[in-house]
Amino acid sequence: MTPFDYRRTHPLNALRPSDIGKQVTLSGWVHRQRDHGGLIFIDLRDRHGITQIIFDPEISKEDHEKASILRLEWVISIKGKVRLRGKGLTNPKLPTGEIEVEVHDFAILSQAKPPPFSISDDHTNAHEELRLKYRYLDLRRKNLSEKLALRHQAFFTTRKFFNDQGFYEIQTPLLARSTPEGARDYLVPSRIHPVHFYALPQSPQIFKQLLMIGGIDRYFQIASCFRDEDLRSDRQPEFTQLDIEMSFVTLEEIKILMQSYLKTLFKECINYEIPETIKAMRYFDCLEMYGTDRPDLRFEMPLIRLDSIMKNSKFAIFRDQIKQGGIVKGICVKKGKDISRKEIDHYTDFVKKFKLNGLAWMKKQAKGFTSGIVKFFTIDQLKAIEEKMDAKTNDLLLFAAGDENIVNQAMDHLRRLIAKEQGLIKQNEYQFLWVYDFPLFEWNQDEKRLKSLHHPFTSPHLEDLSLLKKDPLKMRSLAYDIIINGHEVGGGSQRIHDFKLQKKIFEHLNLNEKEIDEKFGFFIEALQYGTPPHLGIALGLDRLMMLLSQTENIRDVIPFPKTQKASDLMMQCPSKISPSQLNELKIKPNPKEIPWI
Amino acid sequence: MTPFDYRRTHPLNALRPSDIGKQVTLSGWVHRQRDHGGLIFIDLRDRHGITQIIFDPEISKEDHEKASILRLEWVISIKGKVRLRGKGLTNPKLPTGEIEVEVHDFAILSQAKPPPFSISDDHTNAHEELRLKYRYLDLRRKNLSEKLALRHQAFFTTRKFFNDQGFYEIQTPLLARSTPEGARDYLVPSRIHPVHFYALPQSPQIFKQLLMIGGIDRYFQIASCFRDEDLRSDRQPEFTQLDIEMSFVTLEEIKILMQSYLKTLFKECINYEIPETIKAMRYFDCLEMYGTDRPDLRFEMPLIRLDSIMKNSKFAIFRDQIKQGGIVKGICVKKGKDISRKEIDHYTDFVKKFKLNGLAWMKKQAKGFTSGIVKFFTIDQLKAIEEKMDAKTNDLLLFAAGDENIVNQAMDHLRRLIAKEQGLIKQNEYQFLWVYDFPLFEWNQDEKRLKSLHHPFTSPHLEDLSLLKKDPLKMRSLAYDIIINGHEVGGGSQRIHDFKLQKKIFEHLNLNEKEIDEKFGFFIEALQYGTPPHLGIALGLDRLMMLLSQTENIRDVIPFPKTQKASDLMMQCPSKISPSQLNELKIKPNPKEIPWI
Repeated sequence: MTPFDYRRTHPLNALRPSDIGKQVTLSGWVHRQRDHGGLIFIDLRDRHGITQIIFDPEISKEDHEKASILRLEWVISIKGKVRLRGKGLTNPKLPTGEIEVEVHDFAILSQAKPPPFSISDDHTNAHEELRLKYRYLDLRRKNLSEKLALRHQAFFTTRKFFNDQGFYEIQTPLLARSTPEGARDYLVPSRIHPVHFYALPQSPQIFKQLLMIGGIDRYFQIASCFRDEDLRSDRQPEFTQLDIEMSFVTLEEIKILMQSYLKTLFKECINYEIPETIKAMRYFDCLEMYGTDRPDLRFEMPLIRLDSIMKNSKFAIFRDQIKQGGIVKGICVKKGKDISRKEIDHYTDFVKKFKLNGLAWMKKQAKGFTSGIVKFFTIDQLKAIEEKMDAKTNDLLLFAAGDENIVNQAMDHLRRLIAKEQGLIKQNEYQFLWVYDFPLFEWNQDEKRLKSLHHPFTSPHLEDLSLLKKDPLKMRSLAYDIIINGHEVGGGSQRIHDFKLQKKIFEHLNLNEKEIDEKFGFFIEALQYGTPPHLGIALGLDRLMMLLSQTENIRDVIPFPKTQKASDLMMQCPSKISPSQLNELKIKPNPKEIPWI
Repeated sequence: MTPFDYRRTHPLNALRPSDIGKQVTLSGWVHRQRDHGGLIFIDLRDRHGITQIIFDPEISKEDHEKASILRLEWVISIKGKVRLRGKGLTNPKLPTGEIEVEVHDFAILSQAKPPPFSISDDHTNAHEELRLKYRYLDLRRKNLSEKLALRHQAFFTTRKFFNDQGFYEIQTPLLARSTPEGARDYLVPSRIHPVHFYALPQSPQIFKQLLMIGGIDRYFQIASCFRDEDLRSDRQPEFTQLDIEMSFVTLEEIKILMQSYLKTLFKECINYEIPETIKAMRYFDCLEMYGTDRPDLRFEMPLIRLDSIMKNSKFAIFRDQIKQGGIVKGICVKKGKDISRKEIDHYTDFVKKFKLNGLAWMKKQAKGFTSGIVKFFTIDQLKAIEEKMDAKTNDLLLFAAGDENIVNQAMDHLRRLIAKEQGLIKQNEYQFLWVYDFPLFEWNQDEKRLKSLHHPFTSPHLEDLSLLKKDPLKMRSLAYDIIINGHEVGGGSQRIHDFKLQKKIFEHLNLNEKEIDEKFGFFIEALQYGTPPHLGIALGLDRLMMLLSQTENIRDVIPFPKTQKASDLMMQCPSKISPSQLNELKIKPNPKEIPWI
């Protein structure tokens, strides 16, 4: 018996009325089936689409009989003739909905057990754990397979863009050196060098800087990175980063490059037009205006500082807060007049999570402001509030007073909550922001030392260098972030290319000579052989894919994701290994740490 | 002081006489310098090329003075005017050799210590260990940077090709499950699941088959793979594989696809034309003709079987070998008449390494054969040898007799040695071969069991299925290899898509029910939900890059390679880690295995 030739003449989204009469071979999965008036109708599915095929006993009694045993998800191949569907039987939802294929010959290539959840529906109520265990079945659902297709397209578009711009994609090692300065490393024991370990890279940062020292000039990489952290719901132990570094360019050029890249990406992948120029804001302006360095700009509602008005008002709570060094900020909820007291109480409860004591409010009506606190303000003060906050009739004003950080954090979250609950966020819209002039250091209260806000290779603002000794927390860095819809999608900086400055920064991070030498000795050495000025950026591609495909679930955009416990439910990994494997690595379980073993 | 604007107007290979008079900004490394008649000439270098710049005291005494302290590998930026070089001072070796740039302003961006080896020479005698330690300096040498550029270009061309053919590139996990069937895994201890381990993948084999089950249909990936083996000189612990899998296609189509891919790759990367159709040979024919399944076809010199002639000759050694079940094969070295006895003795010593006892030889001269063994043959036998071996005047014939495997192995190596020593191998030439119909199993003498020649997912020839019980070693598989210039560059197979057959194969590999279930249970399960017929291939991209860039050193084509001891000499890794890192992983050194700790 010669095997059935299952090579397809057409994918399953291709046939049209213009193909009527053609002999075709189609292969795919049984997506739906029904027996109707003695005919068996099957929706045959592949990753491209669906085509309806028909088994007619008048054409082949034998095939019709054999077809009656077909079940969902069986794999078959058929040969047959394209014909027009009968009147009223067309399906306008399918590109192939005007035709069908009458089967003249067919073969069952593979049977299937009933799948543990339905594959034919776009939406499934199956528990995610079940779907992760049978990921290969979940991937058959259009919902997921379209996201994988988009991921491929986005990655290819990215590579094409940077190739066209003269960048080289260069692979940096995955078996790298542990750098315990950052997050926790995944470690790989070496067999050849007992009790020595590789680390899976948290990012190719040092490698890409070494490439600049090596004269590579324009580097990019779609890089796999690893962090052994307790996972939040939007994190994965292995993630994918678009990593970029350039020499002899300035901060303007990296912004222009990123604008051009994002414009290309959004256009090619989802046909979305973004402006030529991305709005840019200084870190401190951003914090002042939105209470956060990653504001969602799909809606307005800025935070308005009202200290100058409130400090002279009779509203004691506000006045006292300012006296104690606090601030007062307000937001104006446009057309918020119908927001009830109950809702405002709910907002007040919400901000308490961020240690803010409470909210005050006013409503602007045609005849003026109403609320319990209006009486504490003079007419002039109310006028000033109205002007500063651009309050119009029917607007709701909300006020917060307290420590600056608390007010900022609470009002940032409140601003986003209100936008979400009041439906102020336009779906299918993307708002970009370039934030720059970050502080160089932050104070780590636990460790009682300075930490780099970005990373220790970030260059300070050169005009702030004199502050290094006397007031390092005031120093600004040459770092920048890209924010999309309130998500930090990328960040980067001009790097330090002077080894003496690099050493000084390490010292300010409380590393002593020996630690610097042990951890970064080879890098300080490398900087001394002629290092060009260089800068770069890294973008979180999984996050970007979530934005492009409009999902909140990171596991939707990763082909084989892990759970929040870093497990692969399909492969059942991590797994136990054989004692001989452990022996070869010359390690064993530590009974002190796991007494139950 | 405003910092010097080092943004380049031109890369350093760009300026031509048509640019005379232009004001330019150039940045790069001091590649060569000389003081000549009061002028300072500097060859300024970047990854693109070299441009000569001139400091003239008559233009700026201050700059000229400052330039006198410049040393090799310092990074500078200059502004100046392009001018024609003086008569007799042009450099035809440089694309920019007709012009030079007189410096009007400049800045030293970075000083450099004297490099530990010369960067300006294409060839260096520096020890490889030193160059690996300072890899970032070695990368400045054109020799290496051009190979990185070629690697980028080859990878991008690959991605474009498969994208254009409708393939999706899909990332498979790097934190995967240990599958101890293959080579040794690199293991990653899990912190969240103590004494459980991930394994870095040896290949994405199972994932790509799951993608086919998931309906992805056409998958490719440029994948990082890992093997913890004692390294041969042409191996690296992490390597890069072009991984491909397709559903509903046949063996012809994968060959056509690979031909088309390699044609595109060689054309785009090195402008080399390869034929539309790659020569194909069955495994056994290949072994018969060349003694190996990966022959170098850049030269002829096939192995000719002479059993039928030799078994009747008076040459007892050959006759006896055949009687004992051995074989006789010869090769004809065209125009080999001048190969001396001493050289033949050297060949004889050489084949002894492969357990072959010796070589016999004849030379064909105008008047007939000469050699000590001619007397053992009749005129008819000599005529038959002459004809079978296509021996012409001035050719040298070499003969070997013995066990078939030994003769094949020895004559394969001898054939290659002679070709190399006699200069028969055309440089800059590539010869491709598609080998197919491999045996399904081989016998592992150590473990006294069958092993898969390819891997256990490879489909047998369907017509050989009946041999599975009675003579499994006779079974052919649907596997294939791509050979280029004698190197196995890729291999693949039609996969088993029937779970019952897959189980049977595992059983024949001596896995019991429990082992099958533990190791491959989820995969056997996956095969039962409707698996399309599928096949694929994997190409070793590092090897391919070695061929494209004509180097024998794998470390030349890998950006940051490791030594044969799997060490990164630049990063000094693997490295010791802190006790707290070990404690978190709940493992410790095993004192039984490393008593010196």
